[in-house]
Amino acid sequence: MVAPPRLVERQYFTFAEPPHEMILDCGARLGPITLAYETLGELNAERTNAILILHAFSGDSHVAGYLHEDDERPGWWDNMVGPGKPVDTNRYFVICSNILGSCAGSTGPSSINPQTGKPYGLTFPMVTIKDMVRAQKHLIEHLGIRKLMSLIGGSVGGMQVLRWCADYPEMVGSAIPLATTARHSAQAIAFNEVARQAIMADPAWNNGDYYDGPGPAHGLAVARMIGHVTYLSDEAMREKFGRRLHRSALSFDFTGDFQVESYLHHQGKKFVDRFDANSLLYITKAADYFDLERGGHNLLVNEALADVPFLVISFTSDWLYPTYQSRDIVSALKKNGSDVSFCEIEAQWGHDAFLVPNERLNGLISGFLDRVYHEQCL
Amino acid sequence: MVAPPRLVERQYFTFAEPPHEMILDCGARLGPITLAYETLGELNAERTNAILILHAFSGDSHVAGYLHEDDERPGWWDNMVGPGKPVDTNRYFVICSNILGSCAGSTGPSSINPQTGKPYGLTFPMVTIKDMVRAQKHLIEHLGIRKLMSLIGGSVGGMQVLRWCADYPEMVGSAIPLATTARHSAQAIAFNEVARQAIMADPAWNNGDYYDGPGPAHGLAVARMIGHVTYLSDEAMREKFGRRLHRSALSFDFTGDFQVESYLHHQGKKFVDRFDANSLLYITKAADYFDLERGGHNLLVNEALADVPFLVISFTSDWLYPTYQSRDIVSALKKNGSDVSFCEIEAQWGHDAFLVPNERLNGLISGFLDRVYHEQCL
Repeated sequence: MVAPPRLVERQYFTFAEPPHEMILDCGARLGPITLAYETLGELNAERTNAILILHAFSGDSHVAGYLHEDDERPGWWDNMVGPGKPVDTNRYFVICSNILGSCAGSTGPSSINPQTGKPYGLTFPMVTIKDMVRAQKHLIEHLGIRKLMSLIGGSVGGMQVLRWCADYPEMVGSAIPLATTARHSAQAIAFNEVARQAIMADPAWNNGDYYDGPGPAHGLAVARMIGHVTYLSDEAMREKFGRRLHRSALSFDFTGDFQVESYLHHQGKKFVDRFDANSLLYITKAADYFDLERGGHNLLVNEALADVPFLVISFTSDWLYPTYQSRDIVSALKKNGSDVSFCEIEAQWGHDAFLVPNERLNGLISGFLDRVYHEQCL
Repeated sequence: MVAPPRLVERQYFTFAEPPHEMILDCGARLGPITLAYETLGELNAERTNAILILHAFSGDSHVAGYLHEDDERPGWWDNMVGPGKPVDTNRYFVICSNILGSCAGSTGPSSINPQTGKPYGLTFPMVTIKDMVRAQKHLIEHLGIRKLMSLIGGSVGGMQVLRWCADYPEMVGSAIPLATTARHSAQAIAFNEVARQAIMADPAWNNGDYYDGPGPAHGLAVARMIGHVTYLSDEAMREKFGRRLHRSALSFDFTGDFQVESYLHHQGKKFVDRFDANSLLYITKAADYFDLERGGHNLLVNEALADVPFLVISFTSDWLYPTYQSRDIVSALKKNGSDVSFCEIEAQWGHDAFLVPNERLNGLISGFLDRVYHEQCL
């Protein structure tokens, strides 16, 4: 007998900082703000077993399980999160919220501006990783949680983990930043800017005002293809596609000959159906602005983090956020005397490796959480 | 007293294989074909001191010196080619021809199709590296040269060097393939395909028929930006730009904040003024099709190359054509018993390193050519 799918429900939390708006990093005001979120497992009576999972740039709150009985696929990290899995929902209360600026239920550029009754578009203010984390803090407090047992996130999700540590260390029980950086590099900025230019070059983008039409589908697809090249690696592409053709012979035209081209076309097309082009602009910009070093001071060097255990993980073939950037995080945290475990996992899948099922990754995360649980929750 | 600029003249060679057309790799016919070329130095009486320089994807025949007295800049490899330079034009006769399919004087998609009186556009047949080399062979024979003392080229120029060796080994005295590959990788194909998609997504591309209008300037700029990210490296970008802003503060808008963004915008814009979008499509496709392995046989494994000395050079930070791909070239050539020197040069400038002045590179090339000259020309 096949077990019924574990159903989860998308929930919405709307808040307004007094007087009704949140003052953002850029100085603009925004409010009210809605965050879409999902939870799995049960919060214990002491409210000490909560884990916040922070999603990557194009992710959403649907981290694991199924939203509908007939969904073909579970959430984006279902191999990691669920009953008996490394982030064990039999034991932990897991929260995942869609980030501010995104397009999967949270307030973002495609949301209706209550003052105009129309989508914000480019009138949406620039949001930073700090703003995203501040909004999440409202959600966590709303759920009655004073301190998170752990925060876990990869890529842009890892930036959020680090920002939580810098801004609300008293709410952080432990943290697992994966495949991420504390300073977005020039190369990573370069790739993001090319992706943004691809969108903004599409006449259908119309300066961000396209919600009554088809939108910049071509530009968004190109932007996503650029992303996908950076998520893999030379080795992964060689292994996955090599020079294999997707037809029996060379076409001698421009329709695409190689399997790697079909893969990129497919990824571009799929993304257009699910993601908002303006959200890509805003979230990549938030990543580019992300830098925990200010005026020679690293915000991770903070004695309030001295008792917070960390597990920092990088992947050998990740050239978007290479291992040296994780080592920089570790160096900063060690200055606090923190208990910092660091592991560079041998993996060929490039930046995507943190999402690919991996026994070593599973073992590290489940072991770390188990230890924290026994230290902090029993 | 400042020495007057060394002036060179762009020349044109037009040929037609009987009956008037060349049958291309793809089966199509093309003709007559014009190649733009420039020469420096003097061919000796024995016609044994000729060096053919093969340019990279967006290069042209203007390798060194000045075309006009008031030119601000010399040719693209003026640091390498000239009197007393590593490729010493006091001793060698240097030829550089613009490739078939390009837009700097040679026949390509922007040329007038003699049968219609209009630019070819997408009716231009697909050309391969093999076709480009075959056209160059006509030029070399036209110049009365039976055997080239050496062939030198980086990137797509290096592919041409290797194709010369595979197809016309009897005309190759020695060869220097730089920063190149014998099999275009999945990752390199992926970047090229994204660049092509950026152009083809631009409505002004109009299926390649844009020569009476402004053309796909936005798409071409995005394509060039993608290219430039792949020509540098994480390390080079960190060194050259870091996270430095090009204004005094963050803009909190989408006009570009970081110096690396301004650099890419500038490179994109500059390229639109000098390069044809269709030529980018055709030449990147020729690179993608490039693979000297056919049915398990490597075309570089050829006893006709046994007496040809090789100098193969890669650069540590070149991730577009990484060192392992040069090692593959070396392994194949060594099977012929050839005299193959290989050097991986420590350089931070990524793929661009072969164009950046470098004492080690200069020394290797001048030493190798000097030895070949003494063995073959005296």
